[in-house]
Amino acid sequence: MATFSRLIRFLAKDGSTYYGDAILPSGTSDIARATTARVIKGDIFGQHQVTNQTVEIKKLLSPLARQDIKSVRCLGLNYEQHAKESNAPIPKYPVLFFKPVTSISGPSDDIPVSAMAQEIEGLDYECELVIIIGKEARDVPESRALDYVLGYAVGNDVSHRDWQLKRGSGQWALGKGFDAWAPFGPGIVSSRLIQDPNALQISTKLNGKTVQSSSTKDMIFGVAKTIAFLSQGTTLLPGDVIFTGTPQGVGMGRQPQLWLKDGDVVEVALQDVGTCVNRVVYSKPVAKL
Amino acid sequence: MATFSRLIRFLAKDGSTYYGDAILPSGTSDIARATTARVIKGDIFGQHQVTNQTVEIKKLLSPLARQDIKSVRCLGLNYEQHAKESNAPIPKYPVLFFKPVTSISGPSDDIPVSAMAQEIEGLDYECELVIIIGKEARDVPESRALDYVLGYAVGNDVSHRDWQLKRGSGQWALGKGFDAWAPFGPGIVSSRLIQDPNALQISTKLNGKTVQSSSTKDMIFGVAKTIAFLSQGTTLLPGDVIFTGTPQGVGMGRQPQLWLKDGDVVEVALQDVGTCVNRVVYSKPVAKL
Repeated sequence: MATFSRLIRFLAKDGSTYYGDAILPSGTSDIARATTARVIKGDIFGQHQVTNQTVEIKKLLSPLARQDIKSVRCLGLNYEQHAKESNAPIPKYPVLFFKPVTSISGPSDDIPVSAMAQEIEGLDYECELVIIIGKEARDVPESRALDYVLGYAVGNDVSHRDWQLKRGSGQWALGKGFDAWAPFGPGIVSSRLIQDPNALQISTKLNGKTVQSSSTKDMIFGVAKTIAFLSQGTTLLPGDVIFTGTPQGVGMGRQPQLWLKDGDVVEVALQDVGTCVNRVVYSKPVAKL
Repeated sequence: MATFSRLIRFLAKDGSTYYGDAILPSGTSDIARATTARVIKGDIFGQHQVTNQTVEIKKLLSPLARQDIKSVRCLGLNYEQHAKESNAPIPKYPVLFFKPVTSISGPSDDIPVSAMAQEIEGLDYECELVIIIGKEARDVPESRALDYVLGYAVGNDVSHRDWQLKRGSGQWALGKGFDAWAPFGPGIVSSRLIQDPNALQISTKLNGKTVQSSSTKDMIFGVAKTIAFLSQGTTLLPGDVIFTGTPQGVGMGRQPQLWLKDGDVVEVALQDVGTCVNRVVYSKPVAKL
């Protein structure tokens, strides 16, 4: 459906914000390396065209504007080894939670850590394949589920394990839903260009050192099955974003446990898509609730 | 901030859809009884005015259009007696989950039950006070939290207990998030008119028989505390909707358990606001996943 190859939203050197089709420099598949793009005019979920107007990128933004995102769905425990490191059983059905739209941020934005999340340790990273829905989907069978995908990105499902697992009484939304705790990008690669979304390398580097390294083929519920399941009795809307779970290697599962600190730099990467590089920034002062 | 008293959105007899200020017939405080309204022009979260144009109501719709709602937050276990009937400990912090915007529906719309939710019994009702946020709120203290409220409504947090508690691996979002499983209304009563949102009678009738009857004073985390807590490190947006939990008397907590069936009529009511009356409608045929 889409006419673009690699959708980005960006602040241009001319001071304007655009949707564009990223022009990849030779020798890289990482959209974050793009320095120019062709401007896209129109509705990215409907009538639009990639123009010949080429502009210079100053900064990549979240690939979708907040008002273009309706719901942010996330799956938990969707890689077998991650379920094991979390001491959780392998789920029989996809495990669903949501983040608010305010959690969305861009591929180079800071991850702000508020007072409430500084009170106790537990800040963790999760690299994830992100599905972007392109057209309304309800009760779709697995065999046609990929037809509803606009494209794919990589995201970091930033999580505070104490708020997520303990203080949240078992509901994960609070400890994963703070402002800008769902950076994603660097762009959205059209589903036309990704033959099999369940055969992509996915990884995380923390301060330059690899801490997660896996493949989306290890997902328990693959992309098509996930979309089909989530659309049962529920309408998925254009602009809905689905984080599909993380592989093993999160800080919580390590011996000793490894928590993110102020100033840490986290890079999540997905093959054929690129990287998001986000810095952890503790807000000050540390107030008590 | 708002100039209206009782905000409704409705289909008028003239065929148009309006935002309006409901004109209450004498002798009732139930907005659902209104037959006329003054048309509101402008942005209900910003510059707007209640005009002198009076129109006749054909049908009340969800008080906010889907595109005006950014996130649907819900609290669980927020009444002590309900926590007890759920065999859950009294939470130390508000228990947060989300529904998608597609779960929103109006005060007289049907509650559709898809094949997936018909496979096994467990369909339940939950009457709830609903907070509508009127302006951006972040890190607000409890003492000023009510300043951010546009108004209040009543809603039904329709829940499938099996999908919520068992098949969802403990995450509640799936079993509560199907299309139109968050009817609310009948309108939004301005916070100017509600002196104390934690002193309102709240109840549910199933096919005319009272099954829940309580007061919002029994909420564990009251309205101001809830908003203050949820705004820590998180920006609440104008049009965010917060379902604040249900009192005791849900079908799950009864002996024997009482599950909703095809054709059942559920009425949730909140003092000084009114009623939502929604019919359970099983979609057919019953397909297997």
